[in-house]
Amino acid sequence: MKKDSLNNGFNFEIKAKLDGLGRAAVYSTPHGDIQTPAFVTVGTKAAVKGLTPEMISDLGGQIFLANTYHLYLAPGDDIVAKSGGLHKFANWSGPMMTDSGGFQVLSLGSAFGTNVSKIAKSDSGFNQVRKNENKSSIAKITEDGVEFRSIKDGSKHFFTPEKSMQIQQNLGADMYFAFDECTSSQASYEYQIEAMGRTHRWAKRSLDEHTRLEKKKKNLVNKVLGHVKPPQALFGVVQGGRHFELRKESAQTLGAMDFDGFGIGGSFDKDDMDSAVGVACKHLPEDKPRHLLGIGEPIDFFLGVENGIDLFDCVAPTRMARHGSVHTKDGKINIKNARFKNDFTPIESDCGCYACKNYTRAYICHLLREQEMLGATLASIHNLYFVVHLVDDIRASIYDGTFKKFKDSYIKRYYKK
Amino acid sequence: MKKDSLNNGFNFEIKAKLDGLGRAAVYSTPHGDIQTPAFVTVGTKAAVKGLTPEMISDLGGQIFLANTYHLYLAPGDDIVAKSGGLHKFANWSGPMMTDSGGFQVLSLGSAFGTNVSKIAKSDSGFNQVRKNENKSSIAKITEDGVEFRSIKDGSKHFFTPEKSMQIQQNLGADMYFAFDECTSSQASYEYQIEAMGRTHRWAKRSLDEHTRLEKKKKNLVNKVLGHVKPPQALFGVVQGGRHFELRKESAQTLGAMDFDGFGIGGSFDKDDMDSAVGVACKHLPEDKPRHLLGIGEPIDFFLGVENGIDLFDCVAPTRMARHGSVHTKDGKINIKNARFKNDFTPIESDCGCYACKNYTRAYICHLLREQEMLGATLASIHNLYFVVHLVDDIRASIYDGTFKKFKDSYIKRYYKK
Repeated sequence: MKKDSLNNGFNFEIKAKLDGLGRAAVYSTPHGDIQTPAFVTVGTKAAVKGLTPEMISDLGGQIFLANTYHLYLAPGDDIVAKSGGLHKFANWSGPMMTDSGGFQVLSLGSAFGTNVSKIAKSDSGFNQVRKNENKSSIAKITEDGVEFRSIKDGSKHFFTPEKSMQIQQNLGADMYFAFDECTSSQASYEYQIEAMGRTHRWAKRSLDEHTRLEKKKKNLVNKVLGHVKPPQALFGVVQGGRHFELRKESAQTLGAMDFDGFGIGGSFDKDDMDSAVGVACKHLPEDKPRHLLGIGEPIDFFLGVENGIDLFDCVAPTRMARHGSVHTKDGKINIKNARFKNDFTPIESDCGCYACKNYTRAYICHLLREQEMLGATLASIHNLYFVVHLVDDIRASIYDGTFKKFKDSYIKRYYKK
Repeated sequence: MKKDSLNNGFNFEIKAKLDGLGRAAVYSTPHGDIQTPAFVTVGTKAAVKGLTPEMISDLGGQIFLANTYHLYLAPGDDIVAKSGGLHKFANWSGPMMTDSGGFQVLSLGSAFGTNVSKIAKSDSGFNQVRKNENKSSIAKITEDGVEFRSIKDGSKHFFTPEKSMQIQQNLGADMYFAFDECTSSQASYEYQIEAMGRTHRWAKRSLDEHTRLEKKKKNLVNKVLGHVKPPQALFGVVQGGRHFELRKESAQTLGAMDFDGFGIGGSFDKDDMDSAVGVACKHLPEDKPRHLLGIGEPIDFFLGVENGIDLFDCVAPTRMARHGSVHTKDGKINIKNARFKNDFTPIESDCGCYACKNYTRAYICHLLREQEMLGATLASIHNLYFVVHLVDDIRASIYDGTFKKFKDSYIKRYYKK
């Protein structure tokens, strides 16, 4: 770890390794330590849907990621800044991240006039494809940045790398991401090359703006907080689609820049995950944290970790839960199904979450069928507990040398294969 | 208190009195004591919308009322019974009540082809009128009971007093209500007399069925609970609309029957509250609890208490909250209003609720405008805390002899009059 990274309140220390790229580490931030690998809970609009921050801590959540695009549109990053930053606004005292808004600008802004998906083929049955509902609202990409229309009111906005950094400094999360161009896995090879090049130029501009802003705020006492705003760390974002040679080039290019950590972004086919993620991590500096953006199926955690990933985030656990789809060690079930109306056992009898310790499948089935908010809350608590603890268990298996055995038995049971 | 009431786990002991009808008491039930006057939190479908039971206890809620009509339709009282009763189903260990379903059968079943409202004229600006959305789904009233169509699927159902008692025994709340006919305050005097007569005959049938069912379950060990189901108490429901002579007759008739407590039901003009409620309470036995059904504005609590009411319930605090309307000691405000976007103070700076201790108006405004579930949860916690603590403060003022002074200053500030 470089000295200045230690000095600014961040430190990444590898504690145990797998054969290959996998590792367990402690990532220290100004708002506390994160034991990695870790699942990052997503609170898009500065709130995890239906959960209080205490519920997130109670279920084992260490860190919370909010969304730059959504918070820029509402309430506005100026309001979050005036309130004292995201931690104070959302009442979360632990580590926080924001993404750069690149993915949302392009997918919600209907990049390329096509659907944009994180994973084109999902073998899990869970649909992660984001539909393009409004074909007319094209995001226009130039070398300078992206012009897009708001999903809220159709108003025009322009994001540049510099603007994304300024917004994310206003939001004030501990870690944030460089502004990148997230491509569809359906895009042509030529387009992937073009977009990757732009992402690299934007990465440089993001880093320059970050450095300028970090210097500027040093010794500047914040009026709301009553002290100097804590330092923030910037992660570069590796792109390159499903092409391992582009992923390699992207990792090498970004890895040579002075980022505090790295995100692996974009979309790729699930079958390419080993190559795309593994290649990227292999060519990134070993001593910095790596975050796989927006992926959250059980098998992804195992594949991600053995390919060198430290952090995961995904809206799937809570989104699924609101539709009644809940994880069990034997796979997903839909708790709204009529067969659960009379089932007076918990979602999982050996689960330690608040929902399983206190409520039956029959009750949660009833609440979700009746569109009672508490149903979504209980199912979300269960799913988040499930994924957070799965990644915790993966971490434990790295420390005690049982990763491979744990992976095989877990996947066999969950996916029945 | 009669000996058998003491024996079956219920006891109502008056501890302090106002001049006139008001009193403070302790109402003991098989699931704990209730300090009265008390506000009863409403969880229509066996869940307070957006709140866990722990949130209800934490905000000071002593007791929780669920709805017979809704639970009969879904998930079905048989499922609640099989799960071990409402307490176990909803994870609430304190006292619980169910209403009889009479109000919903008639209002949601579109009684009389007219709107049914609890209070015809509301001076608070909050609309309590239940709209008749589907004029064709008439509830048919006969001497035997009420035929109605489900709001869920249009299926036909028939409620009799006996059936309502059987359902409420299945649900297993501590206190439940006789099946009554809830009239509109717009109904003619002749109709009020007719309906009241029917309510009294149904009260007798409800009480007979209750007595039969209570005897039947004595010494019968319940398979789910592993012990004898606790005894339940039955409340008669006084009707008579806005006519004090009918309210008197109804109170005298029901008061002479062996009920454990009484509800004051039906609708009346707000201006008639003194006479309608006061007259009823004056002619009810002093030694039994009295519940004013479905009323929950700040002024109602003062008027209700001085007219002899011990228990209140209302969906208004949570329903208002979901629409952004929150109580402050200076009246209601709509927290979704744009002027609160930049307001970094709590809803009320001297409020002790979880929402006010941890979040700003700006944050709750943002969440509600963005339709984030947590916004409804936080606003509901605040409003429930507000009404629960207001009734607690009224109770304290009875004990320390400051009721009149407290009432005058509170109403002057809240209503600015």
